[in-house]
Amino acid sequence: MRKISIGIIGFGNIGTGAVKILNSRKLLLAQKIETEILIRRICDKNLSRSRDVSIDKNILTSDAYEIINDPGIDIVVELMGGINPAREYILAALKKGKHVVTANKALLAEHGNELFREAAERGKSIYFEASVGAGIPIIKSIREGLVANKFHSIFGIVNGTSNYILTQMSKENCSFASAVNDAKAKGFAEKDPTFDIQGIDSAHKLILLTYLAFGRIVAMKDVYIEGITEISSSDIAYAKEMGYSIKLLAIAKKEGEELEVRVHATLLPKEHLLSSVEGVFNAIYASSDFAGDLMFYGPGAGQLPAASAVVSDIVDLAQDIKAGLFRPTLNSRPDNSIKGLRKIDDFESRYYIRITAVDEPGVLAKISGVLAKFGISIASVNQKEKLKSHVVPVVMVTHEVKEKNMRLALKMIDKLSEIKDKSVAIRIEGV
Amino acid sequence: MRKISIGIIGFGNIGTGAVKILNSRKLLLAQKIETEILIRRICDKNLSRSRDVSIDKNILTSDAYEIINDPGIDIVVELMGGINPAREYILAALKKGKHVVTANKALLAEHGNELFREAAERGKSIYFEASVGAGIPIIKSIREGLVANKFHSIFGIVNGTSNYILTQMSKENCSFASAVNDAKAKGFAEKDPTFDIQGIDSAHKLILLTYLAFGRIVAMKDVYIEGITEISSSDIAYAKEMGYSIKLLAIAKKEGEELEVRVHATLLPKEHLLSSVEGVFNAIYASSDFAGDLMFYGPGAGQLPAASAVVSDIVDLAQDIKAGLFRPTLNSRPDNSIKGLRKIDDFESRYYIRITAVDEPGVLAKISGVLAKFGISIASVNQKEKLKSHVVPVVMVTHEVKEKNMRLALKMIDKLSEIKDKSVAIRIEGV
Repeated sequence: MRKISIGIIGFGNIGTGAVKILNSRKLLLAQKIETEILIRRICDKNLSRSRDVSIDKNILTSDAYEIINDPGIDIVVELMGGINPAREYILAALKKGKHVVTANKALLAEHGNELFREAAERGKSIYFEASVGAGIPIIKSIREGLVANKFHSIFGIVNGTSNYILTQMSKENCSFASAVNDAKAKGFAEKDPTFDIQGIDSAHKLILLTYLAFGRIVAMKDVYIEGITEISSSDIAYAKEMGYSIKLLAIAKKEGEELEVRVHATLLPKEHLLSSVEGVFNAIYASSDFAGDLMFYGPGAGQLPAASAVVSDIVDLAQDIKAGLFRPTLNSRPDNSIKGLRKIDDFESRYYIRITAVDEPGVLAKISGVLAKFGISIASVNQKEKLKSHVVPVVMVTHEVKEKNMRLALKMIDKLSEIKDKSVAIRIEGV
Repeated sequence: MRKISIGIIGFGNIGTGAVKILNSRKLLLAQKIETEILIRRICDKNLSRSRDVSIDKNILTSDAYEIINDPGIDIVVELMGGINPAREYILAALKKGKHVVTANKALLAEHGNELFREAAERGKSIYFEASVGAGIPIIKSIREGLVANKFHSIFGIVNGTSNYILTQMSKENCSFASAVNDAKAKGFAEKDPTFDIQGIDSAHKLILLTYLAFGRIVAMKDVYIEGITEISSSDIAYAKEMGYSIKLLAIAKKEGEELEVRVHATLLPKEHLLSSVEGVFNAIYASSDFAGDLMFYGPGAGQLPAASAVVSDIVDLAQDIKAGLFRPTLNSRPDNSIKGLRKIDDFESRYYIRITAVDEPGVLAKISGVLAKFGISIASVNQKEKLKSHVVPVVMVTHEVKEKNMRLALKMIDKLSEIKDKSVAIRIEGV
């Protein structure tokens, strides 16, 4: 039986999971692809840590180049994370004629152009199923299952930590801070959850989804990113009353000849399937021209789900290598109908706005006057019960409005003497 | 550029869709797989019908053997449907060394063993992505994306017609008959919808999902099948009050060393994601050991969604052929921990039951007495408002009970003089 040898760089959580799966399904995989997958070498800086998996100690090394330079290794599996030295290792591996499997969304999002170009020039592949949605086969589905489709939009809940926090705030009616603490206690948030709650992690994944669906790697600086740190439990409660959930969505959407690429909290109608995606689960919703609207749902993180995706990449590559097949060209071609990225000022959206005003006659008239001045038309108004002395939250839903106008209007509203707190604005996505 | 030639047998709805997609994405696909896909011949018994797609009339034939016997054709795409002569054509094509793409779930469900065996012996592949969930890449996801996983269960809404009918009954509070008529008027049900509403179509698809997840083709006679014809709008309304939806589910589930394979209406908690799948949409929920619980959602029927799947199969095969890759071994191995199929009598489930009784003292005592006799424990009872003179529906939810006991109990209950209509029992699936 043909043998394919792999080297794993990064023997942490996902790396250990990949070894577990490759060990326990060794026979099954060999039967399925008529090829034996051998773990030839594993690299980690920490070789003494005890890991919940049995391996031959002799294959361990702390020098990644013992893998990169080993002519007997066909596939380098990079699971160390971070930008450097992961980038350097992957480039070196490609130069040495290895194919690469990685779960490193940050690296691919920030250096994808360089890495994919290098791979193409060397006739090698970079597979990265675990980088979005862990075990959900979303990348394979877009690349291969929907190979003939063009996309109108792709958007989803791609960060389990944020979704857990928002779900908790909604279910327990608790504050953002308390939901974050709960997430940390349950192991659903890291000690420093900045990347997750600020939308950075979602943006990394969105860049990869955008690459697959629209054929271009958008620079991080061109992704509009808002996190969930400003979302309050009262916004979640008011939205719920009106039939909406609040979700942190990563959105890539064609509008005319422009592409919008953005990450922000969004009001979604309760009936939208994404509204039912709770806790640490992820789901990606794709709108395609032939196959229609599809959704892919599953655990968005975790050792074994991510490792399941890593192993599926290894299995695909093992077959490609055996057959001499080169498939990175399956990644989308640039969609030529897209002329550029839409600027944030030009986004159009309906809005949920919450304004904190004194409870006096004439305030609503003043607020509506400012909105009218900027051509913002109001779909519904709801003045809530008084909070403290004389202060009431006014909740409004607008019709479609340009982002820029909304921002200017709120700036002017917040300057009114009757306004007692910074106004909140959250975009609404339709179904 | 390498060329791969295909012949299409069946130029109906999906066949026309496949030609449309191959025509309109010719260049894109050639770029993606560095191979040109040529439609060399198309067979249909009706050559005069006008079709919404442009083709060279000279490639049309009414003789399938002009495709099967053409040495220049690499892939035979069977889209005629039905058992015979589709079966004969596919067998002949395999014998002539062709790979096969088909959307024919009935044929594969009933003759899959014969067809897959023939393909394996000839070293050829049968790809069938369009046979379950149309454009949803569920088959590729199980075969490849989840290649290292074993499954605990796979279940889903795989018949859009039935789901549309149940959704209408729930939303419009209308009768089964009126929902069927509405589905027919909107083109969501065929003139004779028997296969859909009786669960036959769902059973065919379930057999294919079971094959992929558990490695065995279960005979139709061994699938327990109930349709939705007995579901009334009052059952849907009562279920809704208790927080459940009613869905026609196709379920394959490992219980100990046995496999349950069944199609029937099911009460699902409203919070279960499948409860939010409405109208003609399909969704398949898979519970896997490494990747966890996943769901795949999309339009379950339609010309272009199905054709999108057919084209993805053709693209995969074109690459396999170019590389000399043989991948049918990716289909699951038989799961050896499964010793046999569980008999319907041994199914265990919670039940929703609706009993139509006269409104007299002592009736509930009699009913509960019978249930107790069969060891059936009641979780909740709800006596509804009187319908006609002296007749009330009694709605109960039971704890887990063996199917056989439930059946015997209801038989005995229905013999009581106080019972005025056949009792209804619907299984409840947990989350």
